[in-house]
Amino acid sequence: MKATVTVMLKPGVLDPQGEAVKSALGSMGFDGVEGVRQGKVIELDLAPGTTEAQVTEMCEKLLANTVIESYRVEIA
Amino acid sequence: MKATVTVMLKPGVLDPQGEAVKSALGSMGFDGVEGVRQGKVIELDLAPGTTEAQVTEMCEKLLANTVIESYRVEIA
Repeated sequence: MKATVTVMLKPGVLDPQGEAVKSALGSMGFDGVEGVRQGKVIELDLAPGTTEAQVTEMCEKLLANTVIESYRVEIA
Repeated sequence: MKATVTVMLKPGVLDPQGEAVKSALGSMGFDGVEGVRQGKVIELDLAPGTTEAQVTEMCEKLLANTVIESYRVEIA
């Protein structure tokens, strides 16, 4: 069983990595880049029977800093 | 126009971050976690008319280290 967790900074939270990527792309000549947000994607190989609630608990306790980050869980 | 780039380590490449997350989840009592791979997700706000080829070029030149990473581009 596989779960994919996507963790992104909440809107309004400064994203220094995203800003760095945006300016680097601009200096490389990619002038159509208006904004960049960077986050984490975590692919979990889970024992059969692991529930989405358990994955959500993993996010709440470890995978995401819920003060500044939001997360999305996809079970495959 | 929005593009989402997902960058993951290629299979076989050691993923120290993923290993750290896996052992942390284990020590927190989540015992059904058999494997963890961590990567980046980059959301790009692009000027209208930006092509997928240009986004691919951004990946090849900056967003991914193609020696050890693979990437996937989704245009929305």
